[in-house]
Amino acid sequence: MDFLSDFLTGFVKQLQSPTLGFLIGGMVAASLGSRLAIPDAVYKFIVFMLLMKVGLTGGQEIRNANLVEMLLPALFAVVTGILIVFLGRYTLCKLPHVKMEDGLATAGLFGAVSGSTFAAALTLLETEQIPYEAWSAALYPFMDIPALVTAIVLASIYTNKQEYRSKREYYGEQGIVAEGYPSKQPERVKVWPIVQESLQGSALSALLLGLVLGLATQPESVYTTFYDPLFRGLLSVLMLIMGMEAWARLNELRKVAHWYTVYSVVAPLFHGLIAFGFGMIAHYLTGFSLGGVVVLAVMAASSSDISGPPTLRAGIPAANPSAYIGASTAVGTPVAIALAIPLYIGLAQALTGGG
Amino acid sequence: MDFLSDFLTGFVKQLQSPTLGFLIGGMVAASLGSRLAIPDAVYKFIVFMLLMKVGLTGGQEIRNANLVEMLLPALFAVVTGILIVFLGRYTLCKLPHVKMEDGLATAGLFGAVSGSTFAAALTLLETEQIPYEAWSAALYPFMDIPALVTAIVLASIYTNKQEYRSKREYYGEQGIVAEGYPSKQPERVKVWPIVQESLQGSALSALLLGLVLGLATQPESVYTTFYDPLFRGLLSVLMLIMGMEAWARLNELRKVAHWYTVYSVVAPLFHGLIAFGFGMIAHYLTGFSLGGVVVLAVMAASSSDISGPPTLRAGIPAANPSAYIGASTAVGTPVAIALAIPLYIGLAQALTGGG
Amino acid sequence: MDFLSDFLTGFVKQLQSPTLGFLIGGMVAASLGSRLAIPDAVYKFIVFMLLMKVGLTGGQEIRNANLVEMLLPALFAVVTGILIVFLGRYTLCKLPHVKMEDGLATAGLFGAVSGSTFAAALTLLETEQIPYEAWSAALYPFMDIPALVTAIVLASIYTNKQEYRSKREYYGEQGIVAEGYPSKQPERVKVWPIVQESLQGSALSALLLGLVLGLATQPESVYTTFYDPLFRGLLSVLMLIMGMEAWARLNELRKVAHWYTVYSVVAPLFHGLIAFGFGMIAHYLTGFSLGGVVVLAVMAASSSDISGPPTLRAGIPAANPSAYIGASTAVGTPVAIALAIPLYIGLAQALTGGG
Repeated sequence: MDFLSDFLTGFVKQLQSPTLGFLIGGMVAASLGSRLAIPDAVYKFIVFMLLMKVGLTGGQEIRNANLVEMLLPALFAVVTGILIVFLGRYTLCKLPHVKMEDGLATAGLFGAVSGSTFAAALTLLETEQIPYEAWSAALYPFMDIPALVTAIVLASIYTNKQEYRSKREYYGEQGIVAEGYPSKQPERVKVWPIVQESLQGSALSALLLGLVLGLATQPESVYTTFYDPLFRGLLSVLMLIMGMEAWARLNELRKVAHWYTVYSVVAPLFHGLIAFGFGMIAHYLTGFSLGGVVVLAVMAASSSDISGPPTLRAGIPAANPSAYIGASTAVGTPVAIALAIPLYIGLAQALTGGG
Repeated sequence: MDFLSDFLTGFVKQLQSPTLGFLIGGMVAASLGSRLAIPDAVYKFIVFMLLMKVGLTGGQEIRNANLVEMLLPALFAVVTGILIVFLGRYTLCKLPHVKMEDGLATAGLFGAVSGSTFAAALTLLETEQIPYEAWSAALYPFMDIPALVTAIVLASIYTNKQEYRSKREYYGEQGIVAEGYPSKQPERVKVWPIVQESLQGSALSALLLGLVLGLATQPESVYTTFYDPLFRGLLSVLMLIMGMEAWARLNELRKVAHWYTVYSVVAPLFHGLIAFGFGMIAHYLTGFSLGGVVVLAVMAASSSDISGPPTLRAGIPAANPSAYIGASTAVGTPVAIALAIPLYIGLAQALTGGG
Repeated sequence: MDFLSDFLTGFVKQLQSPTLGFLIGGMVAASLGSRLAIPDAVYKFIVFMLLMKVGLTGGQEIRNANLVEMLLPALFAVVTGILIVFLGRYTLCKLPHVKMEDGLATAGLFGAVSGSTFAAALTLLETEQIPYEAWSAALYPFMDIPALVTAIVLASIYTNKQEYRSKREYYGEQGIVAEGYPSKQPERVKVWPIVQESLQGSALSALLLGLVLGLATQPESVYTTFYDPLFRGLLSVLMLIMGMEAWARLNELRKVAHWYTVYSVVAPLFHGLIAFGFGMIAHYLTGFSLGGVVVLAVMAASSSDISGPPTLRAGIPAANPSAYIGASTAVGTPVAIALAIPLYIGLAQALTGGG
């Protein structure tokens, strides 16, 4: 009962948050035929600003972290981020009527990390007086970026295969060979050029540039006066744009909406448990605190509503924002906050009592 | 004497305020042949930001406001908006060589509200520490939309009559009936599609979207960190753009008619006084604050330079944009900002002194 | 040894500063094939914002300064700014493989003033308890603007001459006369239209408009909430853009790089000594403080990394940013901070002790 009321409270709060509010506002405006439009140049700059900020945050946090202690948890964060996307690739994407690009973008978003969910968990850990490593905040980019990169790379591989297939159907096997395409298996798509292509894309290169600048320089003066304070506001404008776009593509989603809802409820809890297991391995091997284990689990349970959408919008342009943002923001985040956080804290407390 | 010195002080303050300072600066720069230009994408985004902020402010305040209190001022706003257009219909449009469509479009623009003039008035009220109902920002659409709709409807009626007359002259009464035209009343213009068209325009839909988001969600976190702090600065940039544009259009206006200049100087002050009178009725009946009366008067005095022109261009295609935009932006707005605002604030202060 | 370690420390600090960090980040991203791009409309608006802010700062500082006392130092600032550019014109620009436009832009940047170098000097003067006139900050635009204008005007004259020569080669002397071109000397280029042209350009007119608005109006409310706080952040974005562009043009620089390095090391120290000499004249004639003399010298030693690049980019579009920004930001600024500031403070202290 408490769980249900917590969930409902969290859900209503999310609906009133600027993030979801502007998203829905954009959808409503578009549904009423509004000719409101944000110029494309402004949209591109907003995406740059958001990704640069996320990158700078991650870079600064890694710079101030203890790198040796961080090693194993960071490795587990990377593995979890990648694993979540592959799980989505072979569950959500296999469901009837779920388009591959939409499913991969959704899995990428659920693999990426939500700053606000994460902050809620840290607050609760402090309230419950469960100690955790201060540098665990710096694990953020180790899960976030691999998840997004994996989703984008898998989507690129899929798109390349589709193009290969349609070419083969059109020209026949012979024609493709004549044109210099690989003749045997379409699976023989070279992965590295696609990874490189993804990393050179405007979205990931802004994110990685921010990460490097946060690591190698001292950007605090521009971070605290510019990138950080403008973040929420620019995010609200982006949400508006995405809402308007989501409306235009909502019809496609209606066929599969129930599958996204099922995934959005089950996935956060399951992803968090995987990360909790990895965290326990680090706990026994290197003394990673149980509070840190909870932090890692909540990262996996959370689905990005901030860094993810702009990255995916630029990285997987064919995916429908109303699928991945709807799944993540409307269902995934409330589930993560109201169900996942208390679950892992409860687990940690049970384990503390035992050992 | 006090009134005159208040007025002069207000006038000098206005000249030094960023709002008018940047407007005049833009005009001076353009007059000296400066090639300074703000990109169109940035201009459109600034307009969006300003209208969204005004809408959010209104929405947040309506959320906290007594809706019953708003009723009478809102009614007066609607009446003033419609009245201004009818006044223009029977003054400006009757002057020699003034075309009906041009005159109606101009009257529509002077009945509509300028977000920036209005913002300048709110800023000055805050500087002078004159309290006003924050929900008075929400009166904006109540005057703006009726004025634009009335102008477009009157122009449509006029055009229909003209067509009807020229058809009747050409075919005779019989021919028109045979062609299926309504034989009795040419006034059968459909009002609702015109209202819908106005509301779907980018300007009004940004404003109304902000209003709804301010009402239905809790946008305080983005409002206080983004929309509100950036407002004054973005307004200064908009003023600069408008100053440059006003200078370029000043020449166009000379060709059209000197009557527009007379109208553009007299109308804002007179329209504002009408609304001031209505506001005083609300002041005595329901305790509407004197600051609110000034807001209502400035709304009436202001002529739209953002939402109006595109709406009118679509709604009254026969009207010459250089007449109504030139009259409004080059003369009406400076008169409203430099003369009307200090005039009504001076009046309000004189009345506050008296009781 | 102390000099050397100070220099190295300053150099490393510069490398980590957001200004240089984002510049290098942009170069690295471009070198790795990133498709990151900031829309042109945003770039233009950022330039406008930065120049408007620099202008407003200058205008506000002059407004609050004692104009009579300022007269002689201001005159010397103007003379120094112009002199530095002419020095560059007849030294750097005469070196082999140095293109005239690149050399003039570099000299203009070294004549212009760096806000951050300048702020570092004021901080150090306060630490060393050397008194200086508070209005000496207002000398900034008196050196900055003349240097930039001189560089742009000299570049325009050079470009006009080149066009004249190529025309004469093509048509012969007769053809030019027939077309109404001056027949005798290509040096007879009228300077005033070029000065006017320069001042009407988007960059300088934004700077001068800001100066006038800072002087004649009271822009504090938009300055402190908008132009000033956004300055550093927008600068970082601009540096990123310039870094990406610099990379694309780096090959050209390699031919001449060694001359730019020599100039960038020698020029700041020499320019500062010239201004120190002028300052000592003002010291003996009108009692200009020795602290003020140091301020003037540091202004001359500093090379602009803020107002200069955008002004020059708009004013001398043919010049290679990798030449002038590389020379100024990567070498000139560390030399000015690590060598020039302690040098002039040491000189001032020696003179205070002696007389």
